[in-house]
Amino acid sequence: MKQTMREKAVVLLSGGLDSSTVLFIAKKKYKCHCLIFDYGQRHRREIASAKKIAAAAGCDYRIVKITFKWKGSSLIDKNKKIPFAAMNTKIGGHIPSTYVPGRNTIFLSYAVSLAETIGAKKIFIGANAMDFSGYPDCRPQYYKVFNKLLSVATKNRNIRILTPIIYKTKKEIVGLGIKNGVPFELTWTCYRGGKIPCGKCDACILRAKGFKEAGMKDSLL
Amino acid sequence: MKQTMREKAVVLLSGGLDSSTVLFIAKKKYKCHCLIFDYGQRHRREIASAKKIAAAAGCDYRIVKITFKWKGSSLIDKNKKIPFAAMNTKIGGHIPSTYVPGRNTIFLSYAVSLAETIGAKKIFIGANAMDFSGYPDCRPQYYKVFNKLLSVATKNRNIRILTPIIYKTKKEIVGLGIKNGVPFELTWTCYRGGKIPCGKCDACILRAKGFKEAGMKDSLL
Repeated sequence: MKQTMREKAVVLLSGGLDSSTVLFIAKKKYKCHCLIFDYGQRHRREIASAKKIAAAAGCDYRIVKITFKWKGSSLIDKNKKIPFAAMNTKIGGHIPSTYVPGRNTIFLSYAVSLAETIGAKKIFIGANAMDFSGYPDCRPQYYKVFNKLLSVATKNRNIRILTPIIYKTKKEIVGLGIKNGVPFELTWTCYRGGKIPCGKCDACILRAKGFKEAGMKDSLL
Repeated sequence: MKQTMREKAVVLLSGGLDSSTVLFIAKKKYKCHCLIFDYGQRHRREIASAKKIAAAAGCDYRIVKITFKWKGSSLIDKNKKIPFAAMNTKIGGHIPSTYVPGRNTIFLSYAVSLAETIGAKKIFIGANAMDFSGYPDCRPQYYKVFNKLLSVATKNRNIRILTPIIYKTKKEIVGLGIKNGVPFELTWTCYRGGKIPCGKCDACILRAKGFKEAGMKDSLL
Protein backbone atom coordinates (compact mmCIF):
# COMPACT_ATOMS: atom_id res chain seq x y z
CA MET A 1 0.00 0.00 0.00
CA LYS A 2 1.32 3.44 -0.78
CA GLN A 3 2.28 5.74 2.09
CA THR A 4 -0.23 8.34 0.91
CA MET A 5 -3.04 5.81 0.98
CA ARG A 6 -2.53 4.72 4.55
CA GLU A 7 -4.93 5.61 7.31
CA LYS A 8 -3.61 8.37 9.58
CA ALA A 9 -2.95 8.06 13.30
CA VAL A 10 -1.77 10.45 16.01
CA VAL A 11 0.87 8.98 18.33
CA LEU A 12 1.72 10.52 21.69
CA LEU A 13 5.48 10.33 21.89
CA SER A 14 7.49 11.08 25.02
CA GLY A 15 10.77 9.65 23.80
CA GLY A 16 10.75 6.85 26.36
CA LEU A 17 10.67 3.08 26.01
CA ASP A 18 6.90 2.62 25.98
CA SER A 19 5.77 5.34 23.58
CA SER A 20 8.66 4.62 21.20
CA THR A 21 7.66 0.97 21.07
CA VAL A 22 4.06 1.95 20.43
CA LEU A 23 5.13 4.24 17.58
CA PHE A 24 7.09 1.44 15.92
CA ILE A 25 4.09 -0.88 16.26
CA ALA A 26 1.64 1.73 14.96
CA LYS A 27 3.73 2.77 11.98
CA LYS A 28 3.46 -0.70 10.49
CA LYS A 29 -0.17 -0.03 9.74
CA TYR A 30 -0.72 3.73 9.98
CA LYS A 31 0.76 6.93 8.68
CA CYS A 32 1.75 8.31 12.07
CA HIS A 33 1.85 11.93 13.19
CA CYS A 34 3.69 12.25 16.48
CA LEU A 35 2.74 14.68 19.23
CA ILE A 36 5.54 15.62 21.60
CA PHE A 37 4.87 17.70 24.71
CA ASP A 38 7.16 20.28 26.22
CA TYR A 39 5.44 20.71 29.56
CA GLY A 40 8.26 21.85 31.78
CA GLN A 41 9.29 18.30 32.64
CA ARG A 42 12.60 18.08 34.52
CA HIS A 43 13.70 15.39 32.12
CA ARG A 44 13.23 17.62 29.13
CA ARG A 45 16.03 15.86 27.37
CA GLU A 46 13.35 13.28 26.54
CA ILE A 47 12.08 15.83 23.98
CA ALA A 48 15.31 15.55 22.00
CA SER A 49 14.97 11.78 22.20
CA ALA A 50 11.39 11.94 20.97
CA LYS A 51 12.44 13.98 17.93
CA LYS A 52 15.15 11.44 17.08
CA ILE A 53 12.73 8.54 17.53
CA ALA A 54 10.16 10.21 15.25
CA ALA A 55 12.87 10.75 12.64
CA ALA A 56 14.06 7.15 12.98
CA ALA A 57 10.48 6.01 12.43
CA GLY A 58 10.17 8.25 9.36
CA CYS A 59 7.25 10.14 10.87
CA ASP A 60 6.54 13.80 11.23
CA TYR A 61 6.05 15.39 14.63
CA ARG A 62 4.68 18.50 16.28
CA ILE A 63 5.79 19.85 19.62
CA VAL A 64 3.11 21.34 21.85
CA LYS A 65 4.27 23.65 24.60
CA ILE A 66 2.25 23.50 27.78
CA THR A 67 2.86 25.95 30.55
CA PHE A 68 1.39 24.69 33.76
CA LYS A 69 0.89 27.87 35.68
CA TRP A 70 0.26 25.76 38.75
CA LYS A 71 2.60 23.45 40.58
CA GLY A 72 2.02 20.26 42.51
CA SER A 73 4.21 17.62 40.94
CA SER A 74 7.84 16.75 41.56
CA LEU A 75 8.13 16.08 37.83
CA ILE A 76 7.78 19.77 36.99
CA ASP A 77 8.53 21.57 40.26
CA LYS A 78 12.26 21.79 40.87
CA ASN A 79 11.67 22.65 44.52
CA LYS A 80 10.42 19.12 45.03
CA LYS A 81 12.46 15.97 45.07
CA ILE A 82 11.97 13.09 42.66
CA PRO A 83 11.36 10.08 44.90
CA PHE A 84 13.49 6.95 44.74
CA ALA A 85 11.68 3.87 43.47
CA ALA A 86 8.29 4.96 44.67
CA MET A 87 6.45 2.86 42.16
CA ASN A 88 3.31 1.17 43.25
CA THR A 89 1.43 -1.06 40.93
CA LYS A 90 -1.39 -1.65 43.36
CA ILE A 91 -4.49 0.12 42.15
CA GLY A 92 -5.87 2.39 44.84
CA GLY A 93 -2.52 2.53 46.57
CA HIS A 94 -0.13 5.45 47.07
CA ILE A 95 0.46 7.62 44.01
CA PRO A 96 3.98 9.11 43.92
CA SER A 97 4.70 12.84 43.75
CA THR A 98 5.84 12.52 40.13
CA TYR A 99 2.16 12.32 39.18
CA VAL A 100 1.17 15.43 37.19
CA PRO A 101 -2.54 16.21 37.77
CA GLY A 102 -4.53 15.84 34.58
CA ARG A 103 -1.48 15.38 32.39
CA ASN A 104 -2.66 12.55 30.20
CA THR A 105 -6.10 14.17 29.92
CA ILE A 106 -4.43 17.31 28.57
CA PHE A 107 -2.16 15.33 26.23
CA LEU A 108 -5.07 13.31 24.88
CA SER A 109 -7.27 16.35 24.40
CA TYR A 110 -4.62 17.90 22.13
CA ALA A 111 -4.37 14.57 20.31
CA VAL A 112 -8.13 14.57 19.80
CA SER A 113 -7.99 18.08 18.40
CA LEU A 114 -5.18 17.20 16.01
CA ALA A 115 -6.80 13.90 14.99
CA GLU A 116 -10.07 15.59 14.18
CA THR A 117 -8.28 18.32 12.24
CA ILE A 118 -6.16 16.03 10.07
CA GLY A 119 -8.76 13.29 9.73
CA ALA A 120 -7.01 10.63 11.83
CA LYS A 121 -9.31 8.12 13.48
CA LYS A 122 -6.80 6.54 15.82
CA ILE A 123 -4.76 7.93 18.71
CA PHE A 124 -1.98 5.77 20.11
CA ILE A 125 -0.64 6.13 23.63
CA GLY A 126 1.96 4.04 25.41
CA ALA A 127 0.06 3.81 28.67
CA ASN A 128 0.89 0.80 30.77
CA ALA A 129 -0.86 -0.56 33.82
CA MET A 130 1.38 -3.51 34.60
CA ASP A 131 4.81 -2.24 35.54
CA PHE A 132 3.75 1.30 36.40
CA SER A 133 3.64 3.93 39.11
CA GLY A 134 -0.07 3.74 39.88
CA TYR A 135 -1.04 6.95 38.05
CA PRO A 136 -4.83 7.01 37.63
CA ASP A 137 -4.58 8.15 34.02
CA CYS A 138 -2.62 5.05 33.02
CA ARG A 139 -5.34 2.58 33.95
CA PRO A 140 -7.50 0.67 31.44
CA GLN A 141 -10.73 2.04 32.93
CA TYR A 142 -9.59 5.59 32.17
CA TYR A 143 -9.10 4.80 28.47
CA LYS A 144 -12.37 2.92 28.29
CA VAL A 145 -14.28 5.98 29.49
CA PHE A 146 -12.17 8.37 27.39
CA ASN A 147 -13.26 6.43 24.32
CA LYS A 148 -16.87 6.83 25.42
CA LEU A 149 -16.22 10.56 25.61
CA LEU A 150 -14.83 10.51 22.09
CA SER A 151 -18.03 8.96 20.81
CA VAL A 152 -19.78 12.23 21.70
CA ALA A 153 -16.98 14.83 21.75
CA THR A 154 -16.23 15.32 18.08
CA LYS A 155 -17.95 16.12 14.84
CA ASN A 156 -17.73 12.68 13.29
CA ARG A 157 -17.58 10.73 16.56
CA ASN A 158 -15.17 8.25 15.02
CA ILE A 159 -11.89 8.80 16.87
CA ARG A 160 -10.61 6.08 19.18
CA ILE A 161 -7.66 5.80 21.56
CA LEU A 162 -5.59 2.63 21.28
CA THR A 163 -3.37 1.37 24.09
CA PRO A 164 -1.53 -1.62 22.59
CA ILE A 165 0.84 -2.16 25.52
CA ILE A 166 -1.44 -1.43 28.46
CA TYR A 167 -1.43 -5.03 29.67
CA LYS A 168 2.18 -5.78 28.74
CA THR A 169 4.97 -6.21 31.27
CA LYS A 170 8.18 -4.22 30.76
CA LYS A 171 9.81 -7.47 29.69
CA GLU A 172 7.23 -7.89 26.96
CA ILE A 173 7.54 -4.24 25.90
CA VAL A 174 11.32 -4.61 25.53
CA GLY A 175 10.66 -7.72 23.45
CA LEU A 176 8.16 -5.89 21.25
CA GLY A 177 10.57 -2.99 20.87
CA ILE A 178 13.36 -5.29 19.71
CA LYS A 179 11.03 -7.14 17.35
CA ASN A 180 9.85 -3.89 15.77
CA GLY A 181 13.27 -2.29 15.50
CA VAL A 182 13.04 0.46 18.12
CA PRO A 183 16.43 2.17 18.43
CA PHE A 184 16.52 1.98 22.23
CA GLU A 185 19.81 3.86 22.33
CA LEU A 186 17.92 6.98 21.22
CA THR A 187 15.22 6.78 23.90
CA TRP A 188 15.26 8.50 27.28
CA THR A 189 13.49 7.31 30.40
CA CYS A 190 15.04 8.75 33.60
CA TYR A 191 12.85 11.29 35.40
CA ARG A 192 15.88 13.22 36.59
CA GLY A 193 17.05 14.02 33.09
CA GLY A 194 20.75 14.23 33.95
CA LYS A 195 23.64 13.35 31.67
CA ILE A 196 23.22 9.69 32.45
CA PRO A 197 20.20 7.84 33.87
CA CYS A 198 20.11 8.00 37.69
CA GLY A 199 19.18 4.33 37.98
CA LYS A 200 17.11 5.01 41.06
CA CYS A 201 13.84 6.70 40.08
CA ASP A 202 10.68 4.74 39.23
CA ALA A 203 11.26 5.17 35.53
CA CYS A 204 14.86 3.86 35.66
CA ILE A 205 13.94 0.94 37.91
CA LEU A 206 11.11 -0.12 35.63
CA ARG A 207 13.25 0.16 32.51
CA ALA A 208 16.07 -1.86 34.06
CA LYS A 209 13.57 -4.51 35.17
CA GLY A 210 12.30 -4.83 31.60
CA PHE A 211 15.73 -5.31 30.05
CA LYS A 212 16.89 -7.67 32.80
CA GLU A 213 13.82 -9.90 32.55
CA ALA A 214 14.05 -9.89 28.74
CA GLY A 215 17.69 -11.00 29.09
CA MET A 216 18.81 -8.00 27.03
CA LYS A 217 21.38 -5.28 27.49
CA ASP A 218 19.98 -1.75 27.48
CA SER A 219 21.75 -0.10 24.55
CA LEU A 220 21.34 3.34 26.16
CA LEU A 221 23.62 2.38 29.07
CA MET B 1 -19.13 32.25 55.91
CA LYS B 2 -15.66 33.66 55.53
CA GLN B 3 -14.15 33.86 52.06
CA THR B 4 -11.28 31.63 53.17
CA MET B 5 -13.63 28.91 54.35
CA ARG B 6 -15.50 28.55 51.11
CA GLU B 7 -15.19 25.56 48.84
CA LYS B 8 -13.06 26.24 45.77
CA ALA B 9 -14.23 26.04 42.17
CA VAL B 10 -12.56 26.51 38.80
CA VAL B 11 -14.60 28.58 36.34
CA LEU B 12 -13.88 28.60 32.60
CA LEU B 13 -14.24 32.23 31.60
CA SER B 14 -14.30 33.45 28.01
CA GLY B 15 -15.52 36.95 28.74
CA GLY B 16 -18.83 36.41 26.98
CA LEU B 17 -22.40 36.49 28.18
CA ASP B 18 -22.72 32.84 29.17
CA SER B 19 -19.50 32.21 31.08
CA SER B 20 -19.75 35.59 32.83
CA THR B 21 -23.25 34.73 34.01
CA VAL B 22 -22.03 31.34 35.22
CA LEU B 23 -19.19 32.99 37.15
CA PHE B 24 -21.59 35.35 38.92
CA ILE B 25 -23.84 32.40 39.81
CA ALA B 26 -20.92 30.25 41.01
CA LYS B 27 -19.30 32.95 43.13
CA LYS B 28 -22.34 33.10 45.38
CA LYS B 29 -21.38 29.72 46.77
CA TYR B 30 -17.77 29.07 45.78
CA LYS B 31 -14.40 30.73 45.94
CA CYS B 32 -13.86 30.90 42.21
CA HIS B 33 -10.60 30.66 40.31
CA CYS B 34 -11.08 31.68 36.70
CA LEU B 35 -9.31 30.07 33.76
CA ILE B 36 -9.02 32.24 30.67
CA PHE B 37 -7.69 30.83 27.40
CA ASP B 38 -5.60 32.66 24.86
CA TYR B 39 -5.88 30.21 21.98
CA GLY B 40 -5.38 32.42 18.98
CA GLN B 41 -9.06 33.30 18.75
CA ARG B 42 -9.80 36.10 16.28
CA HIS B 43 -11.91 37.77 18.90
CA ARG B 44 -9.03 37.96 21.32
CA ARG B 45 -10.45 41.13 22.77
CA GLU B 46 -12.68 38.76 24.75
CA ILE B 47 -9.58 38.05 26.86
CA ALA B 48 -9.50 41.66 28.08
CA SER B 49 -13.21 41.35 28.82
CA ALA B 50 -12.65 38.15 30.76
CA LYS B 51 -10.03 39.83 32.93
CA LYS B 52 -12.39 42.70 33.71
CA ILE B 53 -15.23 40.31 34.50
CA ALA B 54 -13.02 38.30 36.86
CA ALA B 55 -11.98 41.51 38.60
CA ALA B 56 -15.60 42.67 38.82
CA ALA B 57 -16.48 39.33 40.41
CA GLY B 58 -13.58 39.70 42.87
CA CYS B 59 -11.99 36.47 41.66
CA ASP B 60 -8.47 35.62 40.66
CA TYR B 61 -7.66 34.33 37.19
CA ARG B 62 -4.98 32.54 35.24
CA ILE B 63 -4.46 32.85 31.52
CA VAL B 64 -3.44 29.70 29.67
CA LYS B 65 -1.85 30.15 26.28
CA ILE B 66 -2.67 27.46 23.76
CA THR B 67 -0.94 27.34 20.43
CA PHE B 68 -2.85 25.21 18.00
CA LYS B 69 -0.17 24.24 15.56
CA TRP B 70 -2.89 22.97 13.31
CA LYS B 71 -5.63 24.85 11.55
CA GLY B 72 -9.14 23.93 10.61
CA SER B 73 -11.43 26.48 12.20
CA SER B 74 -12.54 29.89 10.98
CA LEU B 75 -12.37 31.04 14.60
CA ILE B 76 -8.58 30.81 14.64
CA ASP B 77 -7.60 30.75 10.98
CA LYS B 78 -7.61 34.23 9.47
CA ASN B 79 -7.59 32.81 5.96
CA LYS B 80 -11.11 31.55 6.54
CA LYS B 81 -14.25 33.60 6.78
CA ILE B 82 -16.49 33.73 9.83
CA PRO B 83 -19.91 32.69 8.53
CA PHE B 84 -22.97 34.85 8.90
CA ALA B 85 -25.62 33.47 11.25
CA ALA B 86 -24.73 29.86 10.62
CA MET B 87 -26.19 28.68 13.87
CA ASN B 88 -27.93 25.40 13.92
CA THR B 89 -29.49 24.15 17.10
CA LYS B 90 -30.56 20.87 15.56
CA ILE B 91 -28.48 18.07 16.97
CA GLY B 92 -26.85 16.08 14.21
CA GLY B 93 -27.21 18.99 11.80
CA HIS B 94 -24.55 21.11 10.14
CA ILE B 95 -21.75 22.32 12.40
CA PRO B 96 -20.40 25.74 11.35
CA SER B 97 -16.75 26.41 10.50
CA THR B 98 -16.28 28.35 13.74
CA TYR B 99 -16.14 24.99 15.52
CA VAL B 100 -12.63 24.41 16.92
CA PRO B 101 -11.88 20.66 17.06
CA GLY B 102 -11.43 19.46 20.62
CA ARG B 103 -11.49 22.94 22.11
CA ASN B 104 -13.70 22.33 25.10
CA THR B 105 -11.96 19.03 25.77
CA ILE B 106 -8.65 20.88 25.95
CA PHE B 107 -10.11 23.67 28.11
CA LEU B 108 -11.69 21.20 30.50
CA SER B 109 -8.55 19.10 30.76
CA TYR B 110 -6.62 22.16 31.94
CA ALA B 111 -9.44 22.90 34.37
CA VAL B 112 -9.21 19.36 35.72
CA SER B 113 -5.48 19.73 36.20
CA LEU B 114 -5.88 23.04 38.03
CA ALA B 115 -8.80 21.78 40.12
CA GLU B 116 -6.87 18.73 41.26
CA THR B 117 -3.82 20.86 42.06
CA ILE B 118 -5.63 23.47 44.16
CA GLY B 119 -8.15 21.07 45.68
CA ALA B 120 -11.27 22.37 43.89
CA LYS B 121 -14.01 19.81 43.44
CA LYS B 122 -16.15 21.74 41.01
CA ILE B 123 -15.52 23.03 37.50
CA PHE B 124 -18.04 25.48 36.03
CA ILE B 125 -18.53 25.96 32.31
CA GLY B 126 -21.05 28.13 30.51
CA ALA B 127 -21.97 25.53 27.90
CA ASN B 128 -25.40 25.93 26.42
CA ALA B 129 -27.37 23.55 24.24
CA MET B 130 -30.49 25.62 23.67
CA ASP B 131 -29.56 28.73 21.69
CA PHE B 132 -26.28 27.41 20.33
CA SER B 133 -24.31 26.64 17.19
CA GLY B 134 -24.56 22.85 17.35
CA TYR B 135 -20.99 22.25 18.55
CA PRO B 136 -20.72 18.65 19.82
CA ASP B 137 -18.81 19.71 22.92
CA CYS B 138 -21.65 21.91 24.11
CA ARG B 139 -24.18 19.10 24.43
CA PRO B 140 -25.40 17.61 27.71
CA GLN B 141 -24.31 14.10 26.73
CA TYR B 142 -20.72 15.30 26.39
CA TYR B 143 -20.66 16.65 29.94
CA LYS B 144 -22.34 13.55 31.31
CA VAL B 145 -19.58 11.34 29.89
CA PHE B 146 -16.84 13.82 30.86
CA ASN B 147 -18.00 13.50 34.46
CA LYS B 148 -17.75 9.74 34.15
CA LEU B 149 -14.18 10.24 32.95
CA LEU B 150 -13.45 12.41 35.99
CA SER B 151 -14.56 9.63 38.28
CA VAL B 152 -11.53 7.63 37.09
CA ALA B 153 -9.11 10.30 35.81
CA THR B 154 -7.82 11.86 39.00
CA LYS B 155 -6.25 10.91 42.30
CA ASN B 156 -9.25 11.56 44.49
CA ARG B 157 -11.90 10.98 41.83
CA ASN B 158 -14.04 13.74 43.29
CA ILE B 159 -14.04 16.50 40.67
CA ARG B 160 -17.25 17.29 38.81
CA ILE B 161 -18.16 19.62 35.96
CA LEU B 162 -21.25 21.77 36.48
CA THR B 163 -23.18 23.30 33.59
CA PRO B 164 -25.81 25.49 35.26
CA ILE B 165 -27.09 27.14 32.08
CA ILE B 166 -26.95 24.23 29.64
CA TYR B 167 -30.74 24.05 29.32
CA LYS B 168 -31.39 27.80 29.55
CA THR B 169 -32.45 29.93 26.61
CA LYS B 170 -30.52 33.13 25.91
CA LYS B 171 -33.48 35.03 27.29
CA GLU B 172 -33.19 33.14 30.56
CA ILE B 173 -29.41 33.62 30.65
CA VAL B 174 -29.81 37.38 30.22
CA GLY B 175 -32.36 37.29 33.06
CA LEU B 176 -29.98 35.32 35.30
CA GLY B 177 -27.16 37.69 34.46
CA ILE B 178 -29.21 40.72 35.44
CA LYS B 179 -30.41 39.04 38.63
CA ASN B 180 -26.86 38.17 39.64
CA GLY B 181 -25.33 41.54 38.77
CA VAL B 182 -23.26 40.65 35.70
CA PRO B 183 -21.75 43.84 34.23
CA PHE B 184 -22.80 43.07 30.65
CA GLU B 185 -21.11 46.21 29.37
CA LEU B 186 -17.76 44.55 30.16
CA THR B 187 -18.48 41.33 28.29
CA TRP B 188 -17.56 40.55 24.68
CA THR B 189 -19.39 38.14 22.40
CA CYS B 190 -18.78 38.88 18.71
CA TYR B 191 -16.63 36.28 16.91
CA ARG B 192 -15.13 38.93 14.65
CA GLY B 193 -13.61 40.87 17.54
CA GLY B 194 -13.70 44.24 15.81
CA LYS B 195 -14.12 47.60 17.51
CA ILE B 196 -17.84 47.10 17.71
CA PRO B 197 -19.86 43.87 17.46
CA CYS B 198 -20.58 42.89 13.83
CA GLY B 199 -24.19 42.00 14.60
CA LYS B 200 -24.14 39.26 11.99
CA CYS B 201 -22.20 36.27 13.29
CA ASP B 202 -23.79 33.42 15.28
CA ALA B 203 -22.57 34.83 18.55
CA CYS B 204 -23.97 38.34 17.89
CA ILE B 205 -27.31 36.99 16.64
CA LEU B 206 -27.75 34.77 19.69
CA ARG B 207 -26.82 37.56 22.08
CA ALA B 208 -29.23 40.00 20.44
CA LYS B 209 -31.98 37.37 20.57
CA GLY B 210 -31.47 36.96 24.30
CA PHE B 211 -31.68 40.66 25.10
CA LYS B 212 -34.61 41.20 22.78
CA GLU B 213 -36.64 38.34 24.23
CA ALA B 214 -35.79 39.41 27.77
CA GLY B 215 -37.05 42.90 26.88
CA MET B 216 -33.72 44.42 27.89
CA LYS B 217 -31.25 46.74 26.23
CA ASP B 218 -27.76 45.31 25.75
CA SER B 219 -25.54 47.68 27.76
CA LEU B 220 -22.55 46.82 25.52
CA LEU B 221 -24.21 48.39 22.49
